[in-house]
Amino acid sequence: MRNNSFGNNFTITSWGESHGKALGVVIDGCPAGLSLREEDIQVFLDRRKPGQSKFATPRQEGDKAIILSGIMGDVTTGCPISIMVENDNQRSRDYSNIANVYRPGHADYTYEEKFGIRDYRGGGRSSGRETIARVAGGAVASKILKELGITFSCYTRSIGKYNIADPEDIYLDEINNPLYMPNERVAFQAMEYIEECMKSNDSVGGIVECVIHNVPVGIGEPAFNKLDACLAKAMLSIGAVKGFEMGDGFKATTSNGSTNNDEMSYRNGVIFHSNHAGGVLGGISNGQDILFRVAIKPTPSISQSQHTIDSFNDEIDINITGRHDPVIVPRAVVVVESMAAITLLDLMMDNMTSKIDYMKEIYK
Amino acid sequence: MRNNSFGNNFTITSWGESHGKALGVVIDGCPAGLSLREEDIQVFLDRRKPGQSKFATPRQEGDKAIILSGIMGDVTTGCPISIMVENDNQRSRDYSNIANVYRPGHADYTYEEKFGIRDYRGGGRSSGRETIARVAGGAVASKILKELGITFSCYTRSIGKYNIADPEDIYLDEINNPLYMPNERVAFQAMEYIEECMKSNDSVGGIVECVIHNVPVGIGEPAFNKLDACLAKAMLSIGAVKGFEMGDGFKATTSNGSTNNDEMSYRNGVIFHSNHAGGVLGGISNGQDILFRVAIKPTPSISQSQHTIDSFNDEIDINITGRHDPVIVPRAVVVVESMAAITLLDLMMDNMTSKIDYMKEIYK
Amino acid sequence: MRNNSFGNNFTITSWGESHGKALGVVIDGCPAGLSLREEDIQVFLDRRKPGQSKFATPRQEGDKAIILSGIMGDVTTGCPISIMVENDNQRSRDYSNIANVYRPGHADYTYEEKFGIRDYRGGGRSSGRETIARVAGGAVASKILKELGITFSCYTRSIGKYNIADPEDIYLDEINNPLYMPNERVAFQAMEYIEECMKSNDSVGGIVECVIHNVPVGIGEPAFNKLDACLAKAMLSIGAVKGFEMGDGFKATTSNGSTNNDEMSYRNGVIFHSNHAGGVLGGISNGQDILFRVAIKPTPSISQSQHTIDSFNDEIDINITGRHDPVIVPRAVVVVESMAAITLLDLMMDNMTSKIDYMKEIYK
Amino acid sequence: MRNNSFGNNFTITSWGESHGKALGVVIDGCPAGLSLREEDIQVFLDRRKPGQSKFATPRQEGDKAIILSGIMGDVTTGCPISIMVENDNQRSRDYSNIANVYRPGHADYTYEEKFGIRDYRGGGRSSGRETIARVAGGAVASKILKELGITFSCYTRSIGKYNIADPEDIYLDEINNPLYMPNERVAFQAMEYIEECMKSNDSVGGIVECVIHNVPVGIGEPAFNKLDACLAKAMLSIGAVKGFEMGDGFKATTSNGSTNNDEMSYRNGVIFHSNHAGGVLGGISNGQDILFRVAIKPTPSISQSQHTIDSFNDEIDINITGRHDPVIVPRAVVVVESMAAITLLDLMMDNMTSKIDYMKEIYK
Repeated sequence: MRNNSFGNNFTITSWGESHGKALGVVIDGCPAGLSLREEDIQVFLDRRKPGQSKFATPRQEGDKAIILSGIMGDVTTGCPISIMVENDNQRSRDYSNIANVYRPGHADYTYEEKFGIRDYRGGGRSSGRETIARVAGGAVASKILKELGITFSCYTRSIGKYNIADPEDIYLDEINNPLYMPNERVAFQAMEYIEECMKSNDSVGGIVECVIHNVPVGIGEPAFNKLDACLAKAMLSIGAVKGFEMGDGFKATTSNGSTNNDEMSYRNGVIFHSNHAGGVLGGISNGQDILFRVAIKPTPSISQSQHTIDSFNDEIDINITGRHDPVIVPRAVVVVESMAAITLLDLMMDNMTSKIDYMKEIYK
Repeated sequence: MRNNSFGNNFTITSWGESHGKALGVVIDGCPAGLSLREEDIQVFLDRRKPGQSKFATPRQEGDKAIILSGIMGDVTTGCPISIMVENDNQRSRDYSNIANVYRPGHADYTYEEKFGIRDYRGGGRSSGRETIARVAGGAVASKILKELGITFSCYTRSIGKYNIADPEDIYLDEINNPLYMPNERVAFQAMEYIEECMKSNDSVGGIVECVIHNVPVGIGEPAFNKLDACLAKAMLSIGAVKGFEMGDGFKATTSNGSTNNDEMSYRNGVIFHSNHAGGVLGGISNGQDILFRVAIKPTPSISQSQHTIDSFNDEIDINITGRHDPVIVPRAVVVVESMAAITLLDLMMDNMTSKIDYMKEIYK
Repeated sequence: MRNNSFGNNFTITSWGESHGKALGVVIDGCPAGLSLREEDIQVFLDRRKPGQSKFATPRQEGDKAIILSGIMGDVTTGCPISIMVENDNQRSRDYSNIANVYRPGHADYTYEEKFGIRDYRGGGRSSGRETIARVAGGAVASKILKELGITFSCYTRSIGKYNIADPEDIYLDEINNPLYMPNERVAFQAMEYIEECMKSNDSVGGIVECVIHNVPVGIGEPAFNKLDACLAKAMLSIGAVKGFEMGDGFKATTSNGSTNNDEMSYRNGVIFHSNHAGGVLGGISNGQDILFRVAIKPTPSISQSQHTIDSFNDEIDINITGRHDPVIVPRAVVVVESMAAITLLDLMMDNMTSKIDYMKEIYK
Repeated sequence: MRNNSFGNNFTITSWGESHGKALGVVIDGCPAGLSLREEDIQVFLDRRKPGQSKFATPRQEGDKAIILSGIMGDVTTGCPISIMVENDNQRSRDYSNIANVYRPGHADYTYEEKFGIRDYRGGGRSSGRETIARVAGGAVASKILKELGITFSCYTRSIGKYNIADPEDIYLDEINNPLYMPNERVAFQAMEYIEECMKSNDSVGGIVECVIHNVPVGIGEPAFNKLDACLAKAMLSIGAVKGFEMGDGFKATTSNGSTNNDEMSYRNGVIFHSNHAGGVLGGISNGQDILFRVAIKPTPSISQSQHTIDSFNDEIDINITGRHDPVIVPRAVVVVESMAAITLLDLMMDNMTSKIDYMKEIYK
């Protein structure tokens, strides 16, 4: 397995499996002088913690962040920040029955074929617990971005067919429901739907939307590291994500140039008349809100009977028992936000050498 | 500007602007021993060349590939392969009127802000001509993949609202129309629609779909360099691309686990009952066809009047005259295929160290 | 601080400071299927552990390696291997007197200027304890190389002016002395010399030599990642290293082509008549022993009075008390070997795509 | 072959062989706003051009730099800068007799084994002509550094045993001799020595020394990308280089802490009493001159008879005729300077995110 690192300048290196001793992240390239405490990480980790509603696995995961390096007196020193979360409440016995089974929709078969060996306990490295590393890294990236004035609105846009169809109906002050869905009415309908699916031992998917406010013009490297290209990779690197769209996304394919182009004016600053583009032009931020959506598939672990094979190539029918989320979309919200923060910060660092004047400013 | 390179093992470095002396690519990491001639590159370049139908710009671009290094006697030597295409038929005068104008939907404004200077001639580096580098690189990657038994079907799936709705209606033997759309009937409707739009000086978008056949199980690095994550980045790095989806993609968000999971059987080999996943599980290829779709926005250059500003912050109305594609989807097909080929090959190289047994095989 | 990672394919990420909670390494890209236990790491760590002779600091560092991830049933799974060593026996009070002092020969001043903040406890990140990460990573790399038949002879070649002048006088069976110097007689002289220096509160340097046996022909990427270039970086990245030479090294500058060239014959295999080159030609291994030397400066921490400044720009005279090595050369031997192992393994992975035939072998 | 790119931020990608159509470099990451013309490149290329004295090959290589992209109106646009030099005066027939022969001291045998194929014409990719790419890249890096106040003194320190023993005897105003040796007397002796060697059909080596002035404190990333580590890799990546030392280098191994440490004072600024370290502490520049030396072996091409084998494993004796440099040290001076400039600039870019205050300065 390669590339457990993400980011060229602000780099996170993720390690750990679901049922190993611990999971963690090493953050390399964090600038010195940032105030940082374990609580800053914990606030983010708590947003992805399970056991918080009936729509999430009732597993109790402590998920306490411990900072092992890179800090002195609650200030970053510029040295790599190692953060660890111990796997203290894992019941290995839950998984023994699936040691040789390739669960449909899971990475069991592909890991086994790729590596010739697979840590079957709780999904091993392909478990959703791997996102702890991303969220811990995202907590630090977000803190830096906040100091530069950049903030995020990230939420559930749809669950199954229940979606906030009109952007006008997004009320961020209504987000405090178990689905992180900023519209109480739609959230209520979606929750009813999830409960139905749970009764029939089924699971559901949905869409997460992320808006980044106050991004300076000029972020994104125009050829291969376009801001949208890097965000797309960041998002598809999250397990269960099946799609990504920027601004109008797929809807733009049925639009015309005359309606899809965002016209411009000037009123004490550049003004765009619309934001079909999602805040990027040619892969570079244009000063508008960055806006993208992420498609998340239904949780593959369901307790219905499914047909599959085992590692001896025998066919079997399995019921995946155990404690599983009927929907992972709400818990994915903070993961999406975290990966977006890391991606944006990394590209803001790249941009610091776009002009020779920037270099002269630092090295005057 | 950073990151004009793509790929960690098989790496293309792209350079050049629309109206400079030339554009080109340096391919680093191409294995020695591959038979390669300029014709192999030219076949790919000709697929993206303009001037081939009334739905593409009538500009005549010669686009002749010259191999400058890395080859001896039509065989790759393992040294970097430098390929150049001269910009021999560019009319700079077409663009003088837009030197200071920020065209809506284009990267003019963002380049100017990022770099403080912008090559306005023909879009400079943000021109579609930059894809010449990608297609030349893709031609080489595809040739290697073909030797390993891997092939591509890449085509236009929709233009505006005219799409091949049912996958059963995809007839690859009907692809030889100006839209590279594998269904004559839908292609005909789409062409009529494009002609209408052209009459009203407007442009259209569409969706490209790509299928990769015969990919071995095990390709993709499970954390950040998942096969689908790398493909997503590759696709969004192409200008005008606004969305990416793998397998069922966004449709999966309204599905359930019981229907979205691909069940498995064994008949002289592993068989999946469906391919909702698009051929990846946990970011790793599962032996099925790799299938993804790419959303392409309408060409931003239209000759309707549009409101915008110039570099002096004055508001103006512009008509973009000149020779522009009313739709770039058909020409994007080979770019999508090329970027997919480079991405897949690169990850197949990563995978060669996934097991210690592979190392023993090479270094026995 | 950037680039706490080393290696492109087999990648170690090092983290931790001298007096933080712990230090560690994340190994990414280790192939699956390697038998690996904590004891394998410990054997290497014990070779660098202090307190083992009167020529090393009497500090007792437990330095117990804990593997936190990447292993199942003593076999690597291909997932990142996280290894941690807790800092259990650190006396912070020893260092309080130097919190604001820039010790001559140390990185105190440069860290402070670069980051605006500095973890002064025990040298912080610039402490020799950082090499724990390298040695743990090297233990794993060495184990893989051993399975491929590759072994190392790494030893002290000189201490101060006491060196094993003639390669013929290197007796590897005499290496088990406190200096890891493979000649009892010279080692005895060197130890007497060190004791003298200790009496005058001074320190000494020396040269480590490393020989790698049975490296296949073809390792090293000929332009910038030449085998010798990568080894040079690996070695100079170790604290206190001031020089590197390959084969005859600086001596070659006073030689002539007629004597420096290694002539060749064939006797059931390619035979070189000499090894002035140190086993590389054009940056690629030629099948001979890889041979290089590393210059290590005298330990900068001495308890003699030295003139320097503090962070208030006041001049002071300091005596660095505490427990310090009078010579770090013997403890550096395993660090040199470890970095060489990581470097070589990484390049052997690169080489696996040098020929298309290798790809066909894996993907047949 | 991998890694024909060097630098993480300011990245050069080198391509081309001795007798192909052309050689060149793509410079990625050059900031926008730098005044740059082909003459700036040419000045550097002319310093490495052969045929300028009787101590260099009488081959006439035009080596005219053509800038193909990345510039508008003599100013860099931030886009990749592609520079090409055509191979217009190559006589392929000179080399036909060595197509199957493994020349001693050359990379013929190792290329053949690594790639299974080898461009034997003029050494192919392993030719010294590959350094054209480095020097063109170095010209641009040097221009940027100059704008930041940083300058270089790079010269021949020794030829064979003829060296400027005492640094006090280095007179930079005496450098304009064919050896670029800043001491007329020693240069004269060295030239006599080279002429002797030429008479006996032999070649000689030597040492290049490089001093970089006015480097700010804080450059270099302390773990693996130490300034000295990166310089070491840069230097050993140049063909024929066999050793590297920083400051006192190998001499430091026979020194003591009390003499090797550079003591500090404060007089309107930090003052070091000596520069044994060569301007780095803990891998970070300390504000003193950066000083290092590079060992270059005797040219392997000599017209004496040498014993070797061919690709059929037959033993033969060969005389390498043709036009070869009896010593490459003088022509290597500009290559050393160029690689040093690229390395330093790249690390200065890394350093721009060392403190959060720098980010606030750019994004205020």
